[in-house]
Amino acid sequence: MTQQNYRKMWEALDLDLDAHDGLLEVLGKFYGDIYLSQQGRLAGAEYLDFVLSEIHGLRIQELREAQAAGRKVIGSFCVFVPEEITMAADAIQVGLCAGAEAGTEQAEQVIPRNTCALIKSFVGFKMAKLCPFTESCDLVVGETTCDGKKKAYEAFNELTPTYVMEVPQTKSKAALELWKTEIRRYLAEVEKLTGNTVTAEKLKQGIKTVNARRRVLQRLNKLRAASPAPISGRDALLINQISFYDDPERFTAKINELCDELETRIAEKQGVADEDTPRLLLSGCPMAVPNWKLPYVTESAGAVIVGEESCIGTRNFRDLVDESGTTLDEMIDALAERYMQIDCACFTPNTERLDNVTALAKDLNADGVIHYSLLFCQPYSHESMKVDKALQNEGIPMLSIETDYSMEDVEQLKTRIEAFVETLA
Amino acid sequence: MTQQNYRKMWEALDLDLDAHDGLLEVLGKFYGDIYLSQQGRLAGAEYLDFVLSEIHGLRIQELREAQAAGRKVIGSFCVFVPEEITMAADAIQVGLCAGAEAGTEQAEQVIPRNTCALIKSFVGFKMAKLCPFTESCDLVVGETTCDGKKKAYEAFNELTPTYVMEVPQTKSKAALELWKTEIRRYLAEVEKLTGNTVTAEKLKQGIKTVNARRRVLQRLNKLRAASPAPISGRDALLINQISFYDDPERFTAKINELCDELETRIAEKQGVADEDTPRLLLSGCPMAVPNWKLPYVTESAGAVIVGEESCIGTRNFRDLVDESGTTLDEMIDALAERYMQIDCACFTPNTERLDNVTALAKDLNADGVIHYSLLFCQPYSHESMKVDKALQNEGIPMLSIETDYSMEDVEQLKTRIEAFVETLA
Ligand code: SF4
Ligand code: SF4
Ligand code: SF4
Ligand code: SF4
Repeated sequence: MTQQNYRKMWEALDLDLDAHDGLLEVLGKFYGDIYLSQQGRLAGAEYLDFVLSEIHGLRIQELREAQAAGRKVIGSFCVFVPEEITMAADAIQVGLCAGAEAGTEQAEQVIPRNTCALIKSFVGFKMAKLCPFTESCDLVVGETTCDGKKKAYEAFNELTPTYVMEVPQTKSKAALELWKTEIRRYLAEVEKLTGNTVTAEKLKQGIKTVNARRRVLQRLNKLRAASPAPISGRDALLINQISFYDDPERFTAKINELCDELETRIAEKQGVADEDTPRLLLSGCPMAVPNWKLPYVTESAGAVIVGEESCIGTRNFRDLVDESGTTLDEMIDALAERYMQIDCACFTPNTERLDNVTALAKDLNADGVIHYSLLFCQPYSHESMKVDKALQNEGIPMLSIETDYSMEDVEQLKTRIEAFVETLA
Repeated sequence: MTQQNYRKMWEALDLDLDAHDGLLEVLGKFYGDIYLSQQGRLAGAEYLDFVLSEIHGLRIQELREAQAAGRKVIGSFCVFVPEEITMAADAIQVGLCAGAEAGTEQAEQVIPRNTCALIKSFVGFKMAKLCPFTESCDLVVGETTCDGKKKAYEAFNELTPTYVMEVPQTKSKAALELWKTEIRRYLAEVEKLTGNTVTAEKLKQGIKTVNARRRVLQRLNKLRAASPAPISGRDALLINQISFYDDPERFTAKINELCDELETRIAEKQGVADEDTPRLLLSGCPMAVPNWKLPYVTESAGAVIVGEESCIGTRNFRDLVDESGTTLDEMIDALAERYMQIDCACFTPNTERLDNVTALAKDLNADGVIHYSLLFCQPYSHESMKVDKALQNEGIPMLSIETDYSMEDVEQLKTRIEAFVETLA
């Protein structure tokens, strides 16, 4: 499809074409500086480059073709929205978290200034008509996680109808029951939207497909334990980001190929950095496209990132859904239980995250951890203090970074991260 | 009891005596400036002055005597903790929300800087050993409401064991079921703590006592619709604040007397301000003792406050528990339903609050509303925008104030509020 036709498509989606051009330009420039400039990238990175260059083009066209054929597109902002159910109703789920500053001013008209950049970004993208994914959605699904999102969905609902799932705040039995009810309510909502019935057979298939995607991400994650690091943190983050946009089966196949390539590299002791390069784990808030600031600064500061303890990272793939269920009820129970294993900072208490971070840092042979909280993110700012303590007890150094999407603090971040990296070398 | 003996008591509670002296001095000065300076106060205000002057003295002594006689003291931070159950187990419930800046620096060692002043204050009071109520508690009960408190209780729990109730985030049927389970869990916890069994008879009595306190606060609230305003906003706020500390039966009796006096005043067209003084409703976050900054500035700016749409205000007394239940199950259901009517900004959606604020403004013949959010309070900052819109639709002007406990912005607040009041005159 030509660029000309994409413009028609974006027009049909009622994007603000001029603003969108500006966004694509920035995205392209960022991508060039941060990704294409890397040395010795994998052949499999071609897939990443292609998906990203076509993220507002070919992928949107696919969604529109699917819609023309009667399928529905559902957007979400959190790894709690069960994609297995979406798929079982033959709908397509895409992530709508946004990682750029565009639209912030508009967003601040309907949500408070003291809101994290991720939220401001997705609200701003909607108000500024910048995101073809958001504009392609037949349904947008929010969830009660942090206060910022929970209340922002009220404002978002005035821009576009937003269905909200109640995620509980503890992991008690009663909370699990509430969550099961919410999964059933979502199932009914998706059935209503699509006109399709979610059968046991279809749900089983949905569970298999999403588990397969989780398994390939697990495979990638494990391979990153190798030294020298076989893939850059930037590329690995991009893979995790793309998992929220691309067709799940294509994604799984492509990343499996990429993992084959990684295995060969590892066997040949090849890497993207020297063996003595300090290895860092990133931990904390999700990093949505094109929020590559911290990985870029970190890897420019002489370190290599070996893992992302984040929802665009391990929190998205660590736990599989039990596949042994045969009835709908059994599968819904299995789904509910799997999702309630997510160690999001919105839960209280959330001590399992402390164990998971330290275990991950060890498994990946990380020399240190950078904890990343978005400014005004209360759940992760609180946990930053707890993660620090837990890591200290294991002798693993941690640097706590609080930032947003602006580029103003890049130099300051660089200085702090360089200093941290030096202590590890 | 002499001051000397109080010091011994405070020492026994392991307060930091020097810091506590400092706090009492500030409190006394504030109280003198803000309260005792008022003209034409009610005779019934003597009770308020007495309670406040003895807030760390006589009342603490009463709690200690009750403890010596085997009763337990339970501290809470939210109007969701069902005092009816506490009382049915013959325990005493007190509010621990704090309204002074003391201890902030200590607090910031364990909770993030970007946390609202109320939370920083109660954490700081604990760390600085400043609050005899906190130190008198046999059990501290937190709740999952805002992110700030939910996560702060994890840090608080490391300072003193903190039991947390899960308050749901929506008002669905499933959420109500979760809340019922939580009430039952709390009941069991209090039974365990006290060794007493909560019988239907005792719970009925608890419901009656708490409803009676709510009724007298409702009575006071209604009387404030009169013009000229028969009581200052400061005194009315203090009454609401004291309702969280003083013995409920004494409080109810005393405030009923004060209301009798108010009725006489109203009949005689007497008031604390001229009839043409602009009347304002305060709406938003709770104001804990001694957080009297905004009422003081407002009433010094030529307005009179006629109501508090807040948890230290209407949210605490608007809804009664149905008293017709005879079995424990029926009463627990009635409790759950009553508490789920609370229109806290932590819920989504929370549209009933918009209706309640506008209705209250009209009922109290308010000329305008000051919406008050504590800095970094996401739920109320979000709703400030929605309340503004709802009031605009009814032609009621609103001023949105975001502040904390510091005195640095007093002059700026004064200027803004004076300008607002002028537009109403
Ligand atoms: S961090 Fe929590 S709220 Fe955010 S996407 Fe992950 S699970 Fe959802
Ligand atoms: S980064 Fe924090 S505040 Fe922002 S959406 Fe995620 S959990 Fe909420
Ligand atoms: S504002 Fe909400 S969280 Fe705070 S005391 Fe009131 S009900 Fe509880
Ligand atoms: S004022 Fe807001 S942030 Fe502070 S405790 Fe209350 S609801 Fe939470």
